[in-house]
Amino acid sequence: MADTPLAEGARHRVVIVGGGFGGLYAALALRRAPVDVTLVDRRNFHLFQPLLYQVATGVLSPGDICAPLRSVLRRQANATVLLGDVVEVNLDQRWLRTSEGLRLEYDSLIAATGAGHSYFGNEAWAEHAPGLKTVEDALEIRRRILIAYEAAEQEANDERRAAWLNFVVVGGGPTGVELAGALAEIARETLRSDFRRIWPPDACIYLVEGLKRILPGYPPGLSVKAGRALAGLGVRVRSATLVTGIDEDGVTVEAAGRTARIAARTVLWAAGVQASSFGARLAAAAGADTDRAGRLVVRPDLTLAGHRDVYVIGDLAVYTHQTGAPLPGVAQVAIQQGGYAARAVELRLRGDRPRRRFRYFDKGSLATIGRGKAVADIGPLHFAGFPAWVVWAVVHILNLIEFENRVLVMTQWAWNYLTRRRGARLITGTPLQPEIKEPG
Amino acid sequence: MADTPLAEGARHRVVIVGGGFGGLYAALALRRAPVDVTLVDRRNFHLFQPLLYQVATGVLSPGDICAPLRSVLRRQANATVLLGDVVEVNLDQRWLRTSEGLRLEYDSLIAATGAGHSYFGNEAWAEHAPGLKTVEDALEIRRRILIAYEAAEQEANDERRAAWLNFVVVGGGPTGVELAGALAEIARETLRSDFRRIWPPDACIYLVEGLKRILPGYPPGLSVKAGRALAGLGVRVRSATLVTGIDEDGVTVEAAGRTARIAARTVLWAAGVQASSFGARLAAAAGADTDRAGRLVVRPDLTLAGHRDVYVIGDLAVYTHQTGAPLPGVAQVAIQQGGYAARAVELRLRGDRPRRRFRYFDKGSLATIGRGKAVADIGPLHFAGFPAWVVWAVVHILNLIEFENRVLVMTQWAWNYLTRRRGARLITGTPLQPEIKEPG
Repeated sequence: MADTPLAEGARHRVVIVGGGFGGLYAALALRRAPVDVTLVDRRNFHLFQPLLYQVATGVLSPGDICAPLRSVLRRQANATVLLGDVVEVNLDQRWLRTSEGLRLEYDSLIAATGAGHSYFGNEAWAEHAPGLKTVEDALEIRRRILIAYEAAEQEANDERRAAWLNFVVVGGGPTGVELAGALAEIARETLRSDFRRIWPPDACIYLVEGLKRILPGYPPGLSVKAGRALAGLGVRVRSATLVTGIDEDGVTVEAAGRTARIAARTVLWAAGVQASSFGARLAAAAGADTDRAGRLVVRPDLTLAGHRDVYVIGDLAVYTHQTGAPLPGVAQVAIQQGGYAARAVELRLRGDRPRRRFRYFDKGSLATIGRGKAVADIGPLHFAGFPAWVVWAVVHILNLIEFENRVLVMTQWAWNYLTRRRGARLITGTPLQPEIKEPG
Repeated sequence: MADTPLAEGARHRVVIVGGGFGGLYAALALRRAPVDVTLVDRRNFHLFQPLLYQVATGVLSPGDICAPLRSVLRRQANATVLLGDVVEVNLDQRWLRTSEGLRLEYDSLIAATGAGHSYFGNEAWAEHAPGLKTVEDALEIRRRILIAYEAAEQEANDERRAAWLNFVVVGGGPTGVELAGALAEIARETLRSDFRRIWPPDACIYLVEGLKRILPGYPPGLSVKAGRALAGLGVRVRSATLVTGIDEDGVTVEAAGRTARIAARTVLWAAGVQASSFGARLAAAAGADTDRAGRLVVRPDLTLAGHRDVYVIGDLAVYTHQTGAPLPGVAQVAIQQGGYAARAVELRLRGDRPRRRFRYFDKGSLATIGRGKAVADIGPLHFAGFPAWVVWAVVHILNLIEFENRVLVMTQWAWNYLTRRRGARLITGTPLQPEIKEPG
């Protein structure tokens, strides 16, 4: 089968690896271009990652924030979706090979496989502190949160019960802030009347951030506001605090030269990122520079040095040509870079002079903290509270890729907002956990 | 902790094992009784099993048809929910022990753990033909259905591609009919325009039933109508056909003394049932009779012979005192038996004479075949087509246990009905399947 290239026409062949924000929006932007697009992903769906923490905390179901790639591209006749993992890259002969043995020839390649989490070399932490990148991650986190309360309810020993009711979120970026806020709401509202032996509002939520303030990418004023909103929910924010150890019993932290220990059975990781394995393969093939997280250094037009036909976008790329610092790993950067790469392919194909360089237009940042609470940083406007939450909700609803999902998410949010409930708090996967079997 | 019984008061202690239709409705029916209810389940949610096939076929998400048990019982002060598996039964001293080492003393026990699937002694079939009883089963079936099309799209060999596009459903009861109808709609409508190398409507769906007609529990006229509706969707119905072998390449069948082979990579099991493992434990402890499927034979008042304080209800029980034949394993029987058992406990507690025996009031049967198609058997009324489908939809919406779920399911159905789409068709779990890696 390797000798049957999927794209057979004489048209310019664009292969896009990765169906996240960057890859999918690049494919969509090429819908009127005279090219054959092949979008390869190992998953059959696009995941709306900004709302993944809501799956992890039982508000939404995976189906609400995922859209099948084939469904999104079904009417785009020049696009083919291919399920597979790219295992081989040949940039000289311009082909990729997938895990299923298919050989994909390309004229332009757009690499958009994103990033996973990094434990900064402490891979042993992964088992005790799952990160939040995939749907499976979110369901595992949901399972751990819910199992913790179930185990606490059955635990007779005070100390061990307290450890089940301590939750630590490592990393004070938007995901960490959102997770910590949601954990606090679960404890204080959702589960409030659900148990008979424990009192869920007794749970302690810790948010640990190594830098001096949470939301370090936001203006300092918003960090203060977010910190206050979290404190109002009972979250114990520990900034300028380094995590030096994680094991099954808790977290060791260091602050101002002093070491402390938080006994906690549930630790969630929202700290480092690491470029996907395809990134390493591509960097090796291209001889490209990477940063510490394995992201590929790109030129001002998003191509790799020496490879005018290879674009790297989104979380897989380091783009420093705008401000000197790398652009943040957010959906907006990926979407805009996907559009730029698509346009660049089209211009090159027409023989037009390409635009000089990619420029990110920052529409602003939003982070939600809880029901009716958020912080916003939109151009000159920095605001917080309910207005920010409304903007957050509207922006996220509008950006869901399928209309059906918008209706579903709106329904769920409205219900959740009115009732403070979380309908999707199911413990799935391993029905009963070994942890709960032998609490002592 | 084993010496700390959960129910400590002097009140009558009712322990219910299993939070399905029987157990949950028994707990709810005891809400005003002067008893302490403990509901034990290994899952933290109630599953609305009649709609599970819609999760398996990508219409609904698990969260839509599951309701957390704690959430349903949160306002019922006399009820405690306990996550656990019962691993020991002592009927003489009246206690159970859970997998977490908790000892539960009871005055009345209601056993409602239901049934799983049975491969009639051919356990090797399980791997190739998953059944549909749990949320995880449904997600696994969904994964297999979707992977089959992805693999077919990438398969160059005609014969192997055809095997990926053949689907066999074993068992022509309501679940089998619903699955076969949904598979046909996926092939003909949902995925119609989604692929570039295969034409999904080419897929063949087989429904194999050992008895002379499908829907054997329904009046013959409805079996004919259901068969016609399935044929109209392109399903190949094979009744009076026995399955004699299932392996990874397909199914061997026998009809009228002749053996035939269906090459198919996707086989779904909707045939036999087997009482849950708790049933065997209880039967051994009580010295109770069981039928071939391991279900416990109960007396007219749903108790076990020699154990007036042990009620067995729902799919775990064989009740032959009404018609001579066992009652069917449907939600209505379980719900009514749960209500009866709760009432019987209350009457006994008050010293009143118990009602003589349980009587099932058959409200009728419904099975859906596809979008706008169903068959209904309600008292003297037997009807099919769109009116039956409307009745089916209304009945199922109204019986969902949480209002939120009703709104969500209604939204999803309305969307699915209007657009013929299935938004929740995600391949989760193992991202890429070994099967697709080596198709040959």
